[in-house]
Amino acid sequence: MAAEIVNPRSDSDTDGGTRGASDEPFDPAFALHRGGKMAVQATVPVRDKDDLSLAYTPGVAKVCSAIAERPELVHDYTWKSQVVAVVTDGTAVLGLGDIGPEASLPVMEGKAILFKQFGGVDAVPIALATTDADEIVETVVRLAPSFGGVNLEDISAPRCFEIERKLQERLDIPVFHDDQHGTAIVTLAALRNAARLTGRGLGDLRAVISGAGAAGVAIAKFLLAAGLGDVAVADRKGVVSRDRDDLTPVKRELAELTNKAGLSGPLESALAGADVFIGVSGGTVPEAAVASMAPGSFVFAMANPNPEVHPDVAHKYAAVVATGRSDFPNQINNVLAFPGIFAGALQVRASRITEGMKIAAADALADVVGDDLAADYVIPSPFDERVAPAVTAAVAAAARAEGVARR
Amino acid sequence: MAAEIVNPRSDSDTDGGTRGASDEPFDPAFALHRGGKMAVQATVPVRDKDDLSLAYTPGVAKVCSAIAERPELVHDYTWKSQVVAVVTDGTAVLGLGDIGPEASLPVMEGKAILFKQFGGVDAVPIALATTDADEIVETVVRLAPSFGGVNLEDISAPRCFEIERKLQERLDIPVFHDDQHGTAIVTLAALRNAARLTGRGLGDLRAVISGAGAAGVAIAKFLLAAGLGDVAVADRKGVVSRDRDDLTPVKRELAELTNKAGLSGPLESALAGADVFIGVSGGTVPEAAVASMAPGSFVFAMANPNPEVHPDVAHKYAAVVATGRSDFPNQINNVLAFPGIFAGALQVRASRITEGMKIAAADALADVVGDDLAADYVIPSPFDERVAPAVTAAVAAAARAEGVARR
Repeated sequence: MAAEIVNPRSDSDTDGGTRGASDEPFDPAFALHRGGKMAVQATVPVRDKDDLSLAYTPGVAKVCSAIAERPELVHDYTWKSQVVAVVTDGTAVLGLGDIGPEASLPVMEGKAILFKQFGGVDAVPIALATTDADEIVETVVRLAPSFGGVNLEDISAPRCFEIERKLQERLDIPVFHDDQHGTAIVTLAALRNAARLTGRGLGDLRAVISGAGAAGVAIAKFLLAAGLGDVAVADRKGVVSRDRDDLTPVKRELAELTNKAGLSGPLESALAGADVFIGVSGGTVPEAAVASMAPGSFVFAMANPNPEVHPDVAHKYAAVVATGRSDFPNQINNVLAFPGIFAGALQVRASRITEGMKIAAADALADVVGDDLAADYVIPSPFDERVAPAVTAAVAAAARAEGVARR
Repeated sequence: MAAEIVNPRSDSDTDGGTRGASDEPFDPAFALHRGGKMAVQATVPVRDKDDLSLAYTPGVAKVCSAIAERPELVHDYTWKSQVVAVVTDGTAVLGLGDIGPEASLPVMEGKAILFKQFGGVDAVPIALATTDADEIVETVVRLAPSFGGVNLEDISAPRCFEIERKLQERLDIPVFHDDQHGTAIVTLAALRNAARLTGRGLGDLRAVISGAGAAGVAIAKFLLAAGLGDVAVADRKGVVSRDRDDLTPVKRELAELTNKAGLSGPLESALAGADVFIGVSGGTVPEAAVASMAPGSFVFAMANPNPEVHPDVAHKYAAVVATGRSDFPNQINNVLAFPGIFAGALQVRASRITEGMKIAAADALADVVGDDLAADYVIPSPFDERVAPAVTAAVAAAARAEGVARR
């Protein structure tokens, strides 16, 4: 799976290596990031004038004319169908918040190289100098001819919901806000395996989600679509319920869809008797609340770097514990999903990413675990080479089944 | 100079090689273009979770925070300072005209790989779904945080002038319309060597340019800035002169700047006694008009694929003949300029590309020819490995001298 790594800049540094070295913080992350983490490469030769006359003028003119006549040929004769724009406005970057487009670029480059390494998908970081939802939409619509898909990244709620919806309405290429759906897909995969491990169906489970931002909202909707028994979402003011009068439009919709049990009050009280805790908030959950959950519970405390419940505490009460950290078992990591999801969607030139494709991705991801299923292994490692091909194939097949594939 | 070529897609084709093969035109350009001509690659390793924790979370967060605190660090720790957006709206593509953004992509990809192969500069094709000048400007301004420079390409006149000017006013990174300035720079280099060969100074020369589009206007202004004796520009209605009442604002400005001799009437009459013909029009010049030029003239007939004057005809009268074609000597090819110009500008983080930097590029390009100067060698080959380093160094030095370098 992993492509070979080269560093085309290692021997072309023009400043003799002195660039900024004097004030570089003593941290290996800075040394690694110097000069960026990615490059472009030609995939055709340009060694002589014969090469040039095919790859550029005059040869290229025939290819341009063919596309002008039959626009769908752009997918065959350019990299469009293999390249994704990783688009952000820098407003919700990691746990750092609104740090602006330039400061978000290292994350977008990181995302781009993960697309390549894990999914074989080319990706280009696009950090925008606007936070206006309509301007972001217009800008991405104008960029769309050059790309086969759009991965929205680190755009704060609630604008992320509106931006994604409007782009999906206007474009005929996949638009996917990874902070929402990537997280939801990997969470569902882990949850499905945790249920299998403990002999329960998804319909038997009542989940409580801490956090009503992009991830929390998407996870809630997705788990309900997948058949979970009940889901309640808590924000800082407590459980989102119909009787609250302080809800944003997004949370009002959430109040209609979730919380069949009619819970209200603080997160802690909602956890009493719950089967599943899903933390995407960054807050802290008291041990007593974890202890009050139903026997055989699942605690997915995904805040980074500090999980809402420390795994050592969670293990006292829960049957399955997952986090967002790579140094504990069961890491809920988006990189398990997005490379294969886009690779599968691009492979069949899907016009969008449907709920069915996302469910198929979660199922395929869960299935990789297979017979090795255990309490500390409900989700595969990001470096398991079976993951991306399995997700890719499942997403492509689901796109065909759902009628959104174009080849 | 040339980077190694790899084709990361050659073994990952998922359709067994049948994709579109049945209806592929029998032309090697189509086979070469299949799947596009470029890819992205990681320049840092992502082999295991330690790598991931440096290149992505949590390590990347420190780099993001550092840039948020000191924005100029974006140049050190991302690929921004090494990547150029190749921006078009698809309105003036090669000789094909307004074929739209998708059909223009093969040219933009070609441009991008030439940037890489000849200048070591990463480049990303951005073909926009709008032809509105203000929308193009707004879009590029919003994209700018992600890029170190903007190469405008194949945007029709007169919008190209307005778009470039407004972007240069609003951005602090180089914005360069290659169809204008790249052509002008290479033309000046060839002209300087032709003058040296025949023992004349630029001030001794009177030039006539056929074509008042992007290239014609830019060449006229640039040659005058470089000290040419006189320049007249002809459009389809004849020489652009102050007494014409049908001029666009751009041509009115041209009428003020050019044509000291006060010529009027058709191109052919302006050529009588002229020293230099520069064709960027695609029309045809009658042999009698070429014959009427001054002795020892220069004929640069750059239309592709059909030069305004066939070289065989031009050689009957002219001392130096150049074309835009690779199969005749003295090819005026933009690839001689743009890779080194951006490489030099990016190397010193120039805020713009000044007239002085362009003149320096032309001089450096002319100097590569050196003592080998001859009538059939007034400009080097695009594959001469001395070209890009010479242009890069000259442009970087000129940027420092002109005070637009930021390191």
